[in-house]
Amino acid sequence: MAEPPVFRRLCIIGLGLIGSSIARLARERGDIAETLVACDSGPGVAERVSELGLADVVETDAGRAVRDCDGVILCTPVGTFAGLMAAIAPHLAPGAVLTDTGSTKGSVLRDLLPLLPPGVHLVPGHPMAGTEHSGPDAGFATLFQGRYVILTPLEGTEPAARAKVEALWRRAGAMIETMDPATHDKVVAIVSHLPHLIAFTICSTADDLAQETREQVLKFAASGFRDFTRIASSDVDMWRDVFLNNREALLEMLARFSEDAHALGRAVRWGEAGFIEDRIRRGRKIRRTLIELKQA
Amino acid sequence: MAEPPVFRRLCIIGLGLIGSSIARLARERGDIAETLVACDSGPGVAERVSELGLADVVETDAGRAVRDCDGVILCTPVGTFAGLMAAIAPHLAPGAVLTDTGSTKGSVLRDLLPLLPPGVHLVPGHPMAGTEHSGPDAGFATLFQGRYVILTPLEGTEPAARAKVEALWRRAGAMIETMDPATHDKVVAIVSHLPHLIAFTICSTADDLAQETREQVLKFAASGFRDFTRIASSDVDMWRDVFLNNREALLEMLARFSEDAHALGRAVRWGEAGFIEDRIRRGRKIRRTLIELKQA
Repeated sequence: MAEPPVFRRLCIIGLGLIGSSIARLARERGDIAETLVACDSGPGVAERVSELGLADVVETDAGRAVRDCDGVILCTPVGTFAGLMAAIAPHLAPGAVLTDTGSTKGSVLRDLLPLLPPGVHLVPGHPMAGTEHSGPDAGFATLFQGRYVILTPLEGTEPAARAKVEALWRRAGAMIETMDPATHDKVVAIVSHLPHLIAFTICSTADDLAQETREQVLKFAASGFRDFTRIASSDVDMWRDVFLNNREALLEMLARFSEDAHALGRAVRWGEAGFIEDRIRRGRKIRRTLIELKQA
Repeated sequence: MAEPPVFRRLCIIGLGLIGSSIARLARERGDIAETLVACDSGPGVAERVSELGLADVVETDAGRAVRDCDGVILCTPVGTFAGLMAAIAPHLAPGAVLTDTGSTKGSVLRDLLPLLPPGVHLVPGHPMAGTEHSGPDAGFATLFQGRYVILTPLEGTEPAARAKVEALWRRAGAMIETMDPATHDKVVAIVSHLPHLIAFTICSTADDLAQETREQVLKFAASGFRDFTRIASSDVDMWRDVFLNNREALLEMLARFSEDAHALGRAVRWGEAGFIEDRIRRGRKIRRTLIELKQA
């Protein structure tokens, strides 16, 4: 590559689907980091990362891993961020850029900002990409190709720091958008977190049915239910942390959804055909808009 | 084909996705009906069916269409069945087999049985197949290949009548299952009707968000929300009728789902990580079972 690497020494903390995809991308391209440090304390993960040859240096201790790095990217579940920050803050190099890939952004500011050392630049980010698979074997270098990455930079962040994070994601093939953390958290609450909550729930509801009915349900899982189970097969730790760290926006969207579902249920009970038709038409309209926006 | 046609003269009423798929299948195979009558009173549908060459005889009047037929299959939305039965009952030939493709089976018995002429054999059926498209152009002969068809035969139905309906679906490539109507209605309520109700609802909820947030929602429709909108883009008349005609089972499943969603919402509010993890794990378990059953 003609352009110099974005980072001299980049530390990726958490080598799951997202972290290992960034590592693979950095290995393939060569213009993301001169030296790549991978850190994961999960059982067997560091060994697996070494076997896969995903980094130049593999660590299990985050404090040691970030030393002398000019770039650090947190790719662990957001529930780990407060503890992780306490571990790395004393070791972050002056001038380093700290970013992340967490699905909630209010909680990231809450957990990282109080311990941010002076001279370290925080640029929170969220790549809107993923699959239902997890772990260091699940990643692939093209995961971010054509996907959005939302950055929620703080006011007054040094432009050079922000430019480095943008360069990382541009080289990953992603499209970059900027938003304030509160808007981000609302948008992802309805676009992603509520659909996951619903999908987990409907699987539990089906699982609670009487034995005979449950067997039939699994046998006749038509496309509707089957699509929900695909969403529902996501990583436990990640989604627990997402729900707990986007509590307010998620509960607001669940309340709105719940009111709307009950209104539709009421219309079914009372035979209000016009109301039901209107709701179905609105679903079709949203779908058409997505198709027009090439998001379907 | 070596085997003789199942029916001498088969009348398909309703040439939407399902009806036109059966017509195409019958045309292609030649061993389903000697003569194929297609009947649809929708604006322009009969003309389109003629243009497409889907039947030997094309009618718009159901009473006239069923005359002298030894097989009649209702493929219109279930809300039309009571009126349709009133129109065809006086014209049904003695010994004819009457079947249907409606998504609700309790309502079909309620609407058809009281007017069933003596000597006409009713064998209700429900092919678990479909796409989000509708109309006579949307059908295709392989729609039922490898899909389940659920029959809910009455006690005392003549075995020969039941055998004809089974032969039709076997030749369509479908797998046949038998169930009582109440079990059928419960199973499809959770497998298909509730997921559709949820999908229509979440699209409405998103559509009601403030202008700015809605635009972002459409822009960032990640896989979760996008999958829901695919389900939500289904036919208005069909789904209105399904909801209204499977009222009890659907409202029961909505109530169970709603309790479960609120329990999960409560766990999010109070930070009950263990409860949340359990719900996510159950989703994954159901998904694994579907994969084992080759339904995923």
